[in-house]
Amino acid sequence: MNSRRVVIVGAGFGGLQAAQSLADSGADVLLIDRHNYHTFIPLLYQVATGQLEPEYIAYPIRTILRRFSFWGNQPKVQFLMAEVEQIDFSGQTVETDSCLISYDFLVLATGSRTQFLGVPGASEYAFSMRTLEQAIAIRNQIFSCFERAIQESDSSRRQQLLTFTIVGGGATGVEMAGALVEMLRGHLRRDYPTILQEVRLILVQSGDRLLAELPKKLGAYTHKRLHQLGVEVYLLSKVTRVTFESVHLQNHEIIPTATVIWTAGLEANYPTISNKLSLGNKKKLLVHPTLQLLEQPNVYAIGDLAYLERNGKPLIGVATEALQQGVAVARNIQRQFRGHSPQPFSYFHKGILVIIGCYSGVGKIGAFGFTGCLAWLMWLGVHLVYLPGYRSRFFVLLTWLHTYLSRDRSVRLILSVKKR
Amino acid sequence: MNSRRVVIVGAGFGGLQAAQSLADSGADVLLIDRHNYHTFIPLLYQVATGQLEPEYIAYPIRTILRRFSFWGNQPKVQFLMAEVEQIDFSGQTVETDSCLISYDFLVLATGSRTQFLGVPGASEYAFSMRTLEQAIAIRNQIFSCFERAIQESDSSRRQQLLTFTIVGGGATGVEMAGALVEMLRGHLRRDYPTILQEVRLILVQSGDRLLAELPKKLGAYTHKRLHQLGVEVYLLSKVTRVTFESVHLQNHEIIPTATVIWTAGLEANYPTISNKLSLGNKKKLLVHPTLQLLEQPNVYAIGDLAYLERNGKPLIGVATEALQQGVAVARNIQRQFRGHSPQPFSYFHKGILVIIGCYSGVGKIGAFGFTGCLAWLMWLGVHLVYLPGYRSRFFVLLTWLHTYLSRDRSVRLILSVKKR
Repeated sequence: MNSRRVVIVGAGFGGLQAAQSLADSGADVLLIDRHNYHTFIPLLYQVATGQLEPEYIAYPIRTILRRFSFWGNQPKVQFLMAEVEQIDFSGQTVETDSCLISYDFLVLATGSRTQFLGVPGASEYAFSMRTLEQAIAIRNQIFSCFERAIQESDSSRRQQLLTFTIVGGGATGVEMAGALVEMLRGHLRRDYPTILQEVRLILVQSGDRLLAELPKKLGAYTHKRLHQLGVEVYLLSKVTRVTFESVHLQNHEIIPTATVIWTAGLEANYPTISNKLSLGNKKKLLVHPTLQLLEQPNVYAIGDLAYLERNGKPLIGVATEALQQGVAVARNIQRQFRGHSPQPFSYFHKGILVIIGCYSGVGKIGAFGFTGCLAWLMWLGVHLVYLPGYRSRFFVLLTWLHTYLSRDRSVRLILSVKKR
Repeated sequence: MNSRRVVIVGAGFGGLQAAQSLADSGADVLLIDRHNYHTFIPLLYQVATGQLEPEYIAYPIRTILRRFSFWGNQPKVQFLMAEVEQIDFSGQTVETDSCLISYDFLVLATGSRTQFLGVPGASEYAFSMRTLEQAIAIRNQIFSCFERAIQESDSSRRQQLLTFTIVGGGATGVEMAGALVEMLRGHLRRDYPTILQEVRLILVQSGDRLLAELPKKLGAYTHKRLHQLGVEVYLLSKVTRVTFESVHLQNHEIIPTATVIWTAGLEANYPTISNKLSLGNKKKLLVHPTLQLLEQPNVYAIGDLAYLERNGKPLIGVATEALQQGVAVARNIQRQFRGHSPQPFSYFHKGILVIIGCYSGVGKIGAFGFTGCLAWLMWLGVHLVYLPGYRSRFFVLLTWLHTYLSRDRSVRLILSVKKR
């Protein structure tokens, strides 16, 4: 029997898990990503706020793949760093910026990107936080604003530089707001004592509560806690325009702000596909319960890319969903190798944890919702366990201990890296 | 008595030391730098070769300044992040991109930058390694070359991608060559086993030996050791041209190479000065033995910027020289406050250490030259002690232990950071 070639596009949680689960299948597995590292997206906001070194949450893909093949020198899964430009289902090929690859089975795991919901100016002036580079750009922006503000004699301009606006009251928005408060209470208080009183942190949410995917009570707790921490939470407020120096709301209020961090929307992010696709909400690909594309039995979509429901509601796009789908897709492809039909994916929901910061968080596991320091500690623990690589885990733990004991952060470089 | 304003331009070793030594002088001290961090230049090559996180060797200036004022909230030395554009000795002003500052005393400590010695193509195609951003750019380049080479079917193009050429056989060139060997013997061997045999490391030196500032014997040891490690050392070889894909030598040999790292020359790097200056070798500013500029009794130059001799030979431009000059300049300015005349600077030469890598180094302390593992260990120890900040020291030590025990490096991201 000829070896079948499985091509996996995207080395996020889903793609990497699929590669690992297929490593011993005997298939010829190729993993493609445009970066040479896997990004641990749940901790991006800690890079953006200078808490963690970017290197801690970005793990070299080749090192991960090496671990799947403990005895051999040659990894069982091949890796190609390339940008996928076009996929052709009819010809069964993936075209990258450097070569053309044919496949027998294809797993699409390219995740999601920021969706600016058609708000004018948002894509030009607001910061996204989906990649490591974007997180570093936010870090540069925050520290630059403080350095510029301390030199600024015009008080309204200074106020604008010191106003940080987060759009979106989901988990990412809440975590980012809390992390900014921690920065202000920590080293910023010591580095910029004269201007600290002028800092405004604003969280704008279009819906009537924060953390819509959690029970109302937990959203209310989060709101109260952020308010206590000094964050101005705007509910039922739609952003209608973003400019270089402000955010406009639907009620015609204009918030002067030099920094807008956009966490309000995501959409599926995939390369050009030469065939017609059936799309669901947020441009997600419609899939059978087996995760196969509707029209392509040898093409799977997982993670943020696939539109799937559970109890009548779409999956929310967290790492555990992608990880479980990575396992399922590998199992289904191996079933197809043997001539069996793929089985439906069923998601085991482990729960949700959201960190607010300053020793508090919220969570829901099964029917049990909880708040405060317990949720905060659980969040830290869970993220530490899931982080790839012992070294990263150890260094992140040390960094967190250092941050909370000293209230200091060492990563506050304003760094611009050019290609050359 | 009115408080005198001392302005220090540049927060390298010399500038920071001058600021620290002046912190208790009662003067109004302002430190200006275009970055918000101090770069520990001696470890830049470890960032360029993925051994250390950039954050470990870049320390926030405001944190350093805070340490000078242990009891107060307000630091005794003010900091301004700005690019100095023009200096006017007659008007006693420093003009930055954001404001105009007047001074009573001025300390110039802006260091040096790469000098391409007029070699065509060098400034366009060769990499410098004087700033953190440049070191990260080299890291990106090295890992990109490996990722591109493993996809390349044309063997001569692959050979070119896998040839790394270092121009300059001084300490930086030697350290960089050794660090590249360590990378090849470590994780690159595991990540790219199929192409590793094709890697060429080339060190091009114009003079007849390596490490010209050290005794001949030590240069010869370094040459032999690098040769053992597989580095091709070209002595008496002048580079006449650098292109996108090659280095041309004076003997008409052309080395196909995608990566050229230029460590062969430095020159003093200072902002535009509206007055006439007396310049020495490498555009350095001529100073009195007191470190005052020849024509300006209230302007000092220190570190790589000042032309000074010791035993008839120019100082070589290492951190210890700048640190001692920082202390001396602070003492002289305080003497001028009191109406006394400044005293000549005398350099206490502590010795030189150069690391080759792979457990060897060379050094000379007093009349005593030594080689091998002792020099290697001493180098690591000395650099650890001089690194600012306990946290950085601890994390660098842990990282070194991890690197040497596991032969792995976790920092191998190909990362391009844009401003926005």
